[in-house]
Amino acid sequence: MSNQLFFTPGPSQLYPTITQHLNNAMRENIGSISHRGKEFQMIFQEMKELLSDVLNIPPNYEIFITSSATEIWERIIQNLISKSSHHFVNGSFSERFYNFTTAYQLKSTVQISDFSQEFGEFKVPDEAELISITQNETSIGYSFNPDKIKNIRENNSEKLIALDLVSAVPSIPVDLSQIDTAYFSVQKCFGLPAGIGVWIVGPKCLEVSKAKASKNEIVGSYHSLAALKKNGDKNQTPETPNVLNIYLLKNVLKDMQLRGISSIQNETKYKAALLYQTFDQITELKTVIPHRVNRSKTVCVSEVLGGNTGLIEHLKSKQLIIGSGYESFKDQHIRIANFPAHSKESIEMLVDEIGKYFEKT
Amino acid sequence: MSNQLFFTPGPSQLYPTITQHLNNAMRENIGSISHRGKEFQMIFQEMKELLSDVLNIPPNYEIFITSSATEIWERIIQNLISKSSHHFVNGSFSERFYNFTTAYQLKSTVQISDFSQEFGEFKVPDEAELISITQNETSIGYSFNPDKIKNIRENNSEKLIALDLVSAVPSIPVDLSQIDTAYFSVQKCFGLPAGIGVWIVGPKCLEVSKAKASKNEIVGSYHSLAALKKNGDKNQTPETPNVLNIYLLKNVLKDMQLRGISSIQNETKYKAALLYQTFDQITELKTVIPHRVNRSKTVCVSEVLGGNTGLIEHLKSKQLIIGSGYESFKDQHIRIANFPAHSKESIEMLVDEIGKYFEKT
Repeated sequence: MSNQLFFTPGPSQLYPTITQHLNNAMRENIGSISHRGKEFQMIFQEMKELLSDVLNIPPNYEIFITSSATEIWERIIQNLISKSSHHFVNGSFSERFYNFTTAYQLKSTVQISDFSQEFGEFKVPDEAELISITQNETSIGYSFNPDKIKNIRENNSEKLIALDLVSAVPSIPVDLSQIDTAYFSVQKCFGLPAGIGVWIVGPKCLEVSKAKASKNEIVGSYHSLAALKKNGDKNQTPETPNVLNIYLLKNVLKDMQLRGISSIQNETKYKAALLYQTFDQITELKTVIPHRVNRSKTVCVSEVLGGNTGLIEHLKSKQLIIGSGYESFKDQHIRIANFPAHSKESIEMLVDEIGKYFEKT
Repeated sequence: MSNQLFFTPGPSQLYPTITQHLNNAMRENIGSISHRGKEFQMIFQEMKELLSDVLNIPPNYEIFITSSATEIWERIIQNLISKSSHHFVNGSFSERFYNFTTAYQLKSTVQISDFSQEFGEFKVPDEAELISITQNETSIGYSFNPDKIKNIRENNSEKLIALDLVSAVPSIPVDLSQIDTAYFSVQKCFGLPAGIGVWIVGPKCLEVSKAKASKNEIVGSYHSLAALKKNGDKNQTPETPNVLNIYLLKNVLKDMQLRGISSIQNETKYKAALLYQTFDQITELKTVIPHRVNRSKTVCVSEVLGGNTGLIEHLKSKQLIIGSGYESFKDQHIRIANFPAHSKESIEMLVDEIGKYFEKT
């Protein structure tokens, strides 16, 4: 069981140093230290400094910890939208954020792109206070064209832009100066056990939330931006947080910084090319996203003609665990994660086994 | 550093089996498995069965996982209160829940008891939809008299009762059949790293939340009771949860079940008696809660005449870490956790060192 390699799109293979960091955490009593004490404050501060460096976060942006990226969707709604947001939907996760706005009885709007094409003309309604973009749709492997983000920014200088970076950073470069708020969970590219979400928040967001609160609109309680900021300024969190995961994130960030982010991003490109090449070469496989610019480098998705069961089971017998399709594509698609925890050798081994399976059948 | 023993009121000493369970988790790839797969579902189901047994939870009650007890305060407000709740406040944490209702612009009411006395006559306004009681105030070591809870239940059969069980279970017995909803975090008596809250929800709560939603009142999004129930029925969670902590909770519950809950509760009484006896015998110490019935068995609090710094530092030099007072009592009080992770021998060693310190001074 311990020999299994997980290429699932998250939770996924843990970053190779996690076991060592967990052992150190136990030795250093990280599970017992106070979340109001100096030791925790130093861990939190160091994590923020490393993340700022690794993602090139503008210096006046805040970094907050929540329990998941899912939670951040709700906190964005509570803090940053009074009446309406506009959502670019390119798969199930971006759609789910839009659905949350319905639960909060906002009059949000949506622009859906079929994954077989790029988003057409961008039509953001005047009344939208915030624009939601999903960089990398984990459900279908659709990547939002960075040039289009620039374009949306230029045409909507007054609106907030929220960028979903789940399964995107640090594997692909992102220009956060274009963005007002961004967020991700740690069980994708960072190779951590699930349990925290990271919320990057620009100064304009803090103002908007403050203005919303001053009009007596509800902005939540312990995770209102004001509460997060007040505690964050002391390198603390409003509640007792998942200290262990913050510690792990800090340490994995340090490992990645040492390895070099550009090196991680180059390897990501190489491994993605290998996967898409394999999809191209095998008759029974068909890359789901036709336009190259929209093909995710971190979650590579292929249709399997005749169904995915045989392939998935074959790979499992070789201790290689890949993801099935999401929701309605459960039996047709395979999703292969290409995260920093996946070495070149492991991806080479995987495509090799995929090749062997289709030679036999 | 690894020799330190934490008697802090949470995060606190980890349960002695945690390191072993973490090692097993790494071997079993618990950080990588899918939260939509069978393996996770079995872990979640087994955890719920064990918890039901250990806490004697009525069979028609649900068990949900959140990120903290703090989050549960907010979810209770969103799902179960439309206009007003009534809060029995016996310290900073019960007060904080009341403050959350203000953030949500409810017209809630509060009845405050000075810790030096029992709550007087219970005056619950007719308009209160929910009554909040805190079994064990971690901030001041005040325990709510169980007879009074029975009394409140009898006089308020139509209202919901929410019981805060943070730092109470499984160390002290609680009759959940009296209660509509209860909750706790795992970094207190269960000796886990922080990162999840457990929410026990009776059938009446599900009805109330459903009725609230049907009146187009906002009940949240991914953690609305309906969403938690829909996923919980499949032994899943709406978001990617802290799988590792759910696994640890399952295993620690199994350990505790084997050890015997009545044995844990009897040891808790013995160790608490030892601590309060020590406070009585030493001139410089003074138990903060005068009435025996209100003295917490799990968080024992004493005033230190002349200030707590010397004592805390002395104990730290012996690798024994205790808690200081909460907020305004920071320099005056000591708080000593008496959780299942704290062996009789460790508490005996602690009171011994406390005795030695005051002999010297």
